[in-house]
Amino acid sequence: MNKYRDLQQECYEANLALPKYGLVDLTFGNVSVLDAAKGIVAIKPSGVDYEKLKAEDMVLLDLGGKQVGGNFRPSSDTATHIRLYRAFAGIRSVAHSHSRYAVAFAQAARSIPCLGTTHADYFHGEVPVTRPMTAKEIQGSYELETGNVIVERFKELDPLHIPAVLVHGHGPFVWGTSGLKAVENAFALELVAEMAWRTMQINPQAGPLSTALLDKHFLRKHGAGAYYGQK
Amino acid sequence: MNKYRDLQQECYEANLALPKYGLVDLTFGNVSVLDAAKGIVAIKPSGVDYEKLKAEDMVLLDLGGKQVGGNFRPSSDTATHIRLYRAFAGIRSVAHSHSRYAVAFAQAARSIPCLGTTHADYFHGEVPVTRPMTAKEIQGSYELETGNVIVERFKELDPLHIPAVLVHGHGPFVWGTSGLKAVENAFALELVAEMAWRTMQINPQAGPLSTALLDKHFLRKHGAGAYYGQK
Amino acid sequence: MNKYRDLQQECYEANLALPKYGLVDLTFGNVSVLDAAKGIVAIKPSGVDYEKLKAEDMVLLDLGGKQVGGNFRPSSDTATHIRLYRAFAGIRSVAHSHSRYAVAFAQAARSIPCLGTTHADYFHGEVPVTRPMTAKEIQGSYELETGNVIVERFKELDPLHIPAVLVHGHGPFVWGTSGLKAVENAFALELVAEMAWRTMQINPQAGPLSTALLDKHFLRKHGAGAYYGQK
Amino acid sequence: MNKYRDLQQECYEANLALPKYGLVDLTFGNVSVLDAAKGIVAIKPSGVDYEKLKAEDMVLLDLGGKQVGGNFRPSSDTATHIRLYRAFAGIRSVAHSHSRYAVAFAQAARSIPCLGTTHADYFHGEVPVTRPMTAKEIQGSYELETGNVIVERFKELDPLHIPAVLVHGHGPFVWGTSGLKAVENAFALELVAEMAWRTMQINPQAGPLSTALLDKHFLRKHGAGAYYGQK
Repeated sequence: MNKYRDLQQECYEANLALPKYGLVDLTFGNVSVLDAAKGIVAIKPSGVDYEKLKAEDMVLLDLGGKQVGGNFRPSSDTATHIRLYRAFAGIRSVAHSHSRYAVAFAQAARSIPCLGTTHADYFHGEVPVTRPMTAKEIQGSYELETGNVIVERFKELDPLHIPAVLVHGHGPFVWGTSGLKAVENAFALELVAEMAWRTMQINPQAGPLSTALLDKHFLRKHGAGAYYGQK
Repeated sequence: MNKYRDLQQECYEANLALPKYGLVDLTFGNVSVLDAAKGIVAIKPSGVDYEKLKAEDMVLLDLGGKQVGGNFRPSSDTATHIRLYRAFAGIRSVAHSHSRYAVAFAQAARSIPCLGTTHADYFHGEVPVTRPMTAKEIQGSYELETGNVIVERFKELDPLHIPAVLVHGHGPFVWGTSGLKAVENAFALELVAEMAWRTMQINPQAGPLSTALLDKHFLRKHGAGAYYGQK
Repeated sequence: MNKYRDLQQECYEANLALPKYGLVDLTFGNVSVLDAAKGIVAIKPSGVDYEKLKAEDMVLLDLGGKQVGGNFRPSSDTATHIRLYRAFAGIRSVAHSHSRYAVAFAQAARSIPCLGTTHADYFHGEVPVTRPMTAKEIQGSYELETGNVIVERFKELDPLHIPAVLVHGHGPFVWGTSGLKAVENAFALELVAEMAWRTMQINPQAGPLSTALLDKHFLRKHGAGAYYGQK
Repeated sequence: MNKYRDLQQECYEANLALPKYGLVDLTFGNVSVLDAAKGIVAIKPSGVDYEKLKAEDMVLLDLGGKQVGGNFRPSSDTATHIRLYRAFAGIRSVAHSHSRYAVAFAQAARSIPCLGTTHADYFHGEVPVTRPMTAKEIQGSYELETGNVIVERFKELDPLHIPAVLVHGHGPFVWGTSGLKAVENAFALELVAEMAWRTMQINPQAGPLSTALLDKHFLRKHGAGAYYGQK
C-alpha cells in the first residue's frame, strides 16, 4: 500500500478541507483524488466522521471500481466520481458536498447564472444543472447513472472551464487539478450561489455578465494570458 | 436513583448536543430519553441554563407523568413528550427546539416539502405541520393537548419513517432511537428547512422529489437494504 | 462615587452582554441601568470600544440629565433613555442596539407581528414601530424627541408587557427589570424578528397567534400564574 | 526602503483587518494606503494568502503606477486604486472587497438606498453603482477604466461624504482617511447592504430616510458640529 501513501495523504487533506471551508453538515460530502498514471483513485470511506478520519483510511480503487486498498467501504458516491474521471480528461480530483446554497439551486432545478466577476474568476459561464433522472436510472445503478447525467450535460461544455455541476434535486459535484483545488472550487461555487441568490432577490431581472467581462476575469486568472497572482 | 444513572447520562449528553448543533437560543429546547423496559423517562429540568446542567439534574418521571427522581421541576413540555412515547412505539428519545428555520415553517403553517435528497436521507416525505389548536385545548391541559394534535396528525403516517413534526405556531418536535439520534434528526430538520426555504425562493414552482428518488435515498440509509456507511 | 459602584458594575456587565449576544456591530449600542431610589442612571460612554470599557467608565447622571459622575461623555442617546425611565414606571434598564433583523423592521416601518410562541414567551403582542419624526423634532432636541415618540406610541400599551419598540428608520429600544434582563429581551427581539421575517417570506398570509395561545405562552412565563422554570 | 516602513505597516494592518471584519473569502480583497506628501502608495501583493502576508511584502508604487519597492507583483486592481487617489483629494486609503451583500447589490446593478440611521451614520445618501463598462473599456486598460467609471459616477457627488461605490457586476470600492478607517467603512457598507436588502424584502415600498434625519445622523458624527464619541 505504501506506493499510494501520497495519494491517500492528498485525499485526506482535501477531505479535511471540506469542513474547514464550512461545506459539510453531518457526514455529507466526500473528495476523491486520481493518480492518472497508476489508474488509481483514493476516496473517503462512507459515513465516517471527519474528526475520526486518518490518511490510511482513504479507500483505494482502480478505474473499474474494484477496491484495491483500505479497510473501509468507499463512499456510496464512488461510482459517480469514477465516471467523471473516465469522461473528463485532465481533472485530478472530484469533491461532492451538500453545501447549502448550491443545494438550493440544485433543488430548484436552476443553473447558477454568471452574475458577477467573482463567478467569472472561477467558472467560465453559468454552472449547469442536470436533467431529472428517470425512475429506471434511479432504480438501476444509481450512482453510475448520476455520473452519466453529468457527462450528458457536459456534451457541449468544457469541464476544465466550468469545473462544477448541480445534480438535479441533489447537490453539487465539483472538480479540479488537485484535491485542495477541487475543494477551493466547491467553496467558490457555494459563494457565488449565495451571492446569485441574493442578487436575484434584489433584482429579478439582473442579467448575466457581458461576454467581454466574463472572458476578461476568467482569462485574467486562467490560461496563457493570466496575470493574477505571483509568477 | 442509581439504577437510572445511564438514562440520566444519555439524556444529559443529548441535551448538551442541542447547543453544540446550534439548535438552541436562550433556554429554549429540551430532550427526553425513555427507558421502555422500566417505563421511566428522563428529561431536562425547566428553564435551566445549558452551561449549568449536570447529569443528575435530569428529572425522572413514569409514563403517568409522576415525578420519581430529580430535585428540579421537569421541562414544562414534559406532558407532550410522554404523550409521544405512549403513542409512537419504537421511539426512545424526543427532542424539542425552537430552531430558527423549522420554527419559521411552523409559524407559516406550512409543511416542509421534500425537495431534495438531503431531506430524503432523513425523512421519508414531507415533514407535516399540525392543525391550529382550539382555545379549549390551549386553556385546558395545553402540553398534553399539544401531544394529542401531533398524534392526530400522524394517524396515517409512520413516525419511524418521518421522525419529526412541526407544531403550528410553535416549533418542531423530533424523535429517534437514541438521545443523540433524536438531536441529529433535529439538526437534519433544521438543515432541510433552511434549504427548502431558499429553494422555494429561487423557484416557487419547485416540485417534490420523485417517488423513485425519495425511496432510493431513504432506503439507501434505512432498513434492510441500506448500504450507506460501514457495516 | 463609591456609592454607585454596584450600579456601574451592573451597567458594565449588561453592556458587555450586548456583544456576547451578537447584538453589536462597530460601536453601535448602549445599555443604561436606573437606581430608582437614588434617581441615578448609569450609561455607557459614547463611541468607546466594548473591549476597552471598564466598570468605572460608566457615566452617571440624574433624571434631569445632569452628569454627576464618570470621566467620559455619556452615550449620545442618553436623553432617550432618561425619557423612558421617566415615563415607564417599573423598568430598571434600557438597551439600545442596531441588531440587524430588528433594524430591518424599523427601516421597513413595520411592527413585528406575533407569529409564534417564541415571540409570545417574551412580548405580549406585536412589537410596535413609532411614527416618522418631523423635521422639527429631528432638528430640535433629537434624542429627547426620540423618547417622546416612543412614549406617544405606548399611550395605549403596557410597557411591562411589551418591553420593546422599533424607532422608525432607526432601530430597537428594549427594556427590562435588570441590566441583563433588558439585554436578554433585546436578544429575544432580534430572534423573533429573524423568524418573523422568514415566516412572512414562506407565507405572506401567515396570521398572528390566536389570543388564547398568546396569553397561554406569555402568562406561562410572566405574572402570578407562571409555571415555567424553577421556583 | 526604510523610509516607507510606517506606510507599509499601516497598509499591512489594514489588509489584516479585512478578514478580521469577515470581509474576505479566498484571496479576494486588497487595501492600499497613500503617503500624499511623498506621492507613494503601498498595496497588497496579488493573490497572496492573508495568513502569509508580512508588512515588508506590501508593494510600493508611485502615482504613475511605477513599482518602487517590494519583491512581489502588486494587486491586479492597483491601477483602480491609483486612479482614485488622483481624482479624490483628501482620501488616504482605498479598500476593495468582494463582501457578500455589497456584491449582491453590485451584481443587481442597484444603488444601496439610505433606509436608516446606521447608513446615515457613515454615508451621506445612497451608495451609487457605476454604469456597465463597454467591451472596449474592458478589453483595454481594464483596471484603469474601472477607476474611470468610478470617477465618472462621482462627477456630482462628494467622495468625502459618500466614501464608497459599487462597481457594476463586480463589487465595492471604499475609501477613508486611514487604512483602518477605509476598512471600517467597508464593513459599515456590508452591514447597511445586508439591512437594506432585508428591509426591501419586508417592505418593497420602504422609502429613503428623510433629509432631516439623514443630515442629523451624518452630521452628528462628521464635520464641525459632530457630538458623537469623546473629544
